[in-house]
Amino acid sequence: MSQRQIKLGAFLMETGHHIAAWRHPHAHAAAGLDFAHYAELAQIAERAKFDTIFFADSVGVRDTDLASLSRTARADHFEPLTLLSALSAVTRHIGLTATVSTSFNEPYNVARKFASLDHLSGGRAGWNLVTSSSETEAHNFSLDRHFDHALRYERAREFYDIVTGLWDSWEDDAFVRDKESGLYFDPAKLHTLNHRGKHFKVKGPLNVARAPQGWPVVVQAGASEAGRELAAQTAEVIFVAHQTLEEAQSFYRDVKGRLARYGRHPDDLKIMPGIFPVIGRTQEEADEKFEALQALIHPVVGVSLLSKMAGGVDLSSYPVDGPVPDLPETNGGKSRQRLLLDLARRENLTIRDLYLRIAGARGHQQVVGTPQSIADQLQQWFEEGAADGFNIMSPWLPGGLVEFAAHVVPELQRRGLFRTEYEGTTLRQNLGLRRPPNRHAIERSANAHALADAG
Amino acid sequence: MSQRQIKLGAFLMETGHHIAAWRHPHAHAAAGLDFAHYAELAQIAERAKFDTIFFADSVGVRDTDLASLSRTARADHFEPLTLLSALSAVTRHIGLTATVSTSFNEPYNVARKFASLDHLSGGRAGWNLVTSSSETEAHNFSLDRHFDHALRYERAREFYDIVTGLWDSWEDDAFVRDKESGLYFDPAKLHTLNHRGKHFKVKGPLNVARAPQGWPVVVQAGASEAGRELAAQTAEVIFVAHQTLEEAQSFYRDVKGRLARYGRHPDDLKIMPGIFPVIGRTQEEADEKFEALQALIHPVVGVSLLSKMAGGVDLSSYPVDGPVPDLPETNGGKSRQRLLLDLARRENLTIRDLYLRIAGARGHQQVVGTPQSIADQLQQWFEEGAADGFNIMSPWLPGGLVEFAAHVVPELQRRGLFRTEYEGTTLRQNLGLRRPPNRHAIERSANAHALADAG
Repeated sequence: MSQRQIKLGAFLMETGHHIAAWRHPHAHAAAGLDFAHYAELAQIAERAKFDTIFFADSVGVRDTDLASLSRTARADHFEPLTLLSALSAVTRHIGLTATVSTSFNEPYNVARKFASLDHLSGGRAGWNLVTSSSETEAHNFSLDRHFDHALRYERAREFYDIVTGLWDSWEDDAFVRDKESGLYFDPAKLHTLNHRGKHFKVKGPLNVARAPQGWPVVVQAGASEAGRELAAQTAEVIFVAHQTLEEAQSFYRDVKGRLARYGRHPDDLKIMPGIFPVIGRTQEEADEKFEALQALIHPVVGVSLLSKMAGGVDLSSYPVDGPVPDLPETNGGKSRQRLLLDLARRENLTIRDLYLRIAGARGHQQVVGTPQSIADQLQQWFEEGAADGFNIMSPWLPGGLVEFAAHVVPELQRRGLFRTEYEGTTLRQNLGLRRPPNRHAIERSANAHALADAG
Repeated sequence: MSQRQIKLGAFLMETGHHIAAWRHPHAHAAAGLDFAHYAELAQIAERAKFDTIFFADSVGVRDTDLASLSRTARADHFEPLTLLSALSAVTRHIGLTATVSTSFNEPYNVARKFASLDHLSGGRAGWNLVTSSSETEAHNFSLDRHFDHALRYERAREFYDIVTGLWDSWEDDAFVRDKESGLYFDPAKLHTLNHRGKHFKVKGPLNVARAPQGWPVVVQAGASEAGRELAAQTAEVIFVAHQTLEEAQSFYRDVKGRLARYGRHPDDLKIMPGIFPVIGRTQEEADEKFEALQALIHPVVGVSLLSKMAGGVDLSSYPVDGPVPDLPETNGGKSRQRLLLDLARRENLTIRDLYLRIAGARGHQQVVGTPQSIADQLQQWFEEGAADGFNIMSPWLPGGLVEFAAHVVPELQRRGLFRTEYEGTTLRQNLGLRRPPNRHAIERSANAHALADAG
């Protein structure tokens, strides 16, 4: 298979990505803490040959607007590493990617858990490295306020160096396990990290053998300047949100263009924008499905979403079917506030109209159409330099994922754009990413060459 | 079932508890990172109706004596919470107990992971709360040295309060999930912890619904004065090491005697000493099995174990089949050093003889015999106030556990001392521990009564 193909992630979230998904007539409203629900989703995605399932995360109840939060299924859910570990036992091929914050964890624990998951799953672990942006999470970790943006990224960079350093503690062939002589491992192939940096001191070594993938796949999602730069240095997959082809192409060019500076090849990093697909046999059916979901958004939830998007102004005292008022200036999100207001004025939208515009995919590309038209759009983005693959954010689960697997995946396969069998046994192999060699084995080999030259 | 019965834990560790287990002819030497090995063990224990499987843990490679460490299977293993999460998917009844340190983790993360495991497993999670005693672990967590003993326990106590407080964030009936009205949860039943203590500030609430067990079962293993006191306040199970009936009875009396001070009933805490059983059809066969394992201890490993037990003196320069030399005084473990030396002199032991005495069960009760004689001893400890159950430390795995399940468990069942079916669906129910009510629901109910009285 030499043709470049689309990579697919299944971004799983409780009953689905639409904010009102839990109210869908066929949704299992308690799915957020039902393992059987996630086992079913992972198996659907695996049968459809997705590269990976993916979980976002926050270490706290981020939304403090209880009136709105209590009308969503977003307040409670599984911790992703425990969930993915359990899912490793009921899947065989699909990647298992979880979000873990560098701001609210210790690097030794993170290195260890992902190495452990990689061993449990035979090489299918992915770590979505985030720095966490919310103050409410910081308050759960003995901090009065969160680290500044720059500091967060500085810590993240050091954190990454420690984690990957620990992943190289053991050379791949360190374990000889010779019952006869009694030697279990070769002590020369165990390495102590001895990291002493600005934010962390971590001696090592890791108490887990080198992972089947060498290193679990490193994923990122930051879109800021600091986020792009960290990704260019360290990420192997980027999940990102774009609304338009042009925006996605510009991001793709920019980030891929940064790689050479760090000695990396454009293929060493896969860029996978999120898409929110609503699938119908006809365009009309797709539109109707979307409208039916939209109608389930409780006005309290919709107005709260809009208020946050408009930079924190409180719109709850205005009539929901009346005009959008002139918004008072706030500190947060001025340009987004201006965009929203312009849109409302231009199209003469009510508050309800406006929140319905933003409540669906929340920043990701929303595609409402037939399997063919959705495949057309994915193909265009893939072929015109906007994406290496996509992270599929089904509006409701399992229904939306079932439909994507049954109708869009076969359409992509017919076009030769997606695999019909997994290429390898590890996430890294399926994504077409090289396995990082162990740094100490490289040194050993360099030393051996030097000795041979000297001899 | 009104007769009091023995509780059983299966303490799993790589290829087994004997230090040379990995060299056993039938041992799978690479089992430490083989999920199928642990799935088999958990299923054996579950078929035998064990209450729980149990994993010890350290967050580092604790042993720095590489010559010895490299001849054991102790340097690398799964991280226990990821492993137990995976095992939750291939078991249905057995408890899943993992060790997690209060010294090298954040309480929010620990509360969350165990709540998540409890949901994944339908109420089978247990947390073995340890404070970690080794300096080498501290060096992996930006500490130059570990917290002092007293400080470790002070932090642990506060850590426990936070974790259990977070576990009460949601009342049991908070989630209404009413699709019609659009209300997912009742905001009045979500509670913010707002903990501000000496060591931690944790706001909460937890982003996981209340666990099926209310709180996962809290296990401890500390035997020091501070450890006993913390256990009396907070533990529901104690795993402990005793060599003699008298020692075990004295510990049992002491700890159970402390409970009343904290308003607890003796049955609220189950004391389960570790036992290391070597099982034969005859006493001779059991003895031979044990000797065969002992013969596999590499002298470098045996001498290193003895050196550590003797307070850190280096015995590696003395002939292993020569007499035990007079030991120079050291700071660590003086009384243990004296005991070892007295034993060696009294019985005229060589260095090899002496390390063989201590290398087997390492402090736990070693029972080498027939299923009947082992059951006799368990029965005696159970009936004479030394134990509520036992943590079975099989010398090698899976063999030793298979034999215990096939021969000792049925013998205990014949005597009416052990269940033939699980009593409940949760670990807590099987152990006979009450489900903790949610503190806020208690308040609510108290307020309702007060109002009724006032009315």
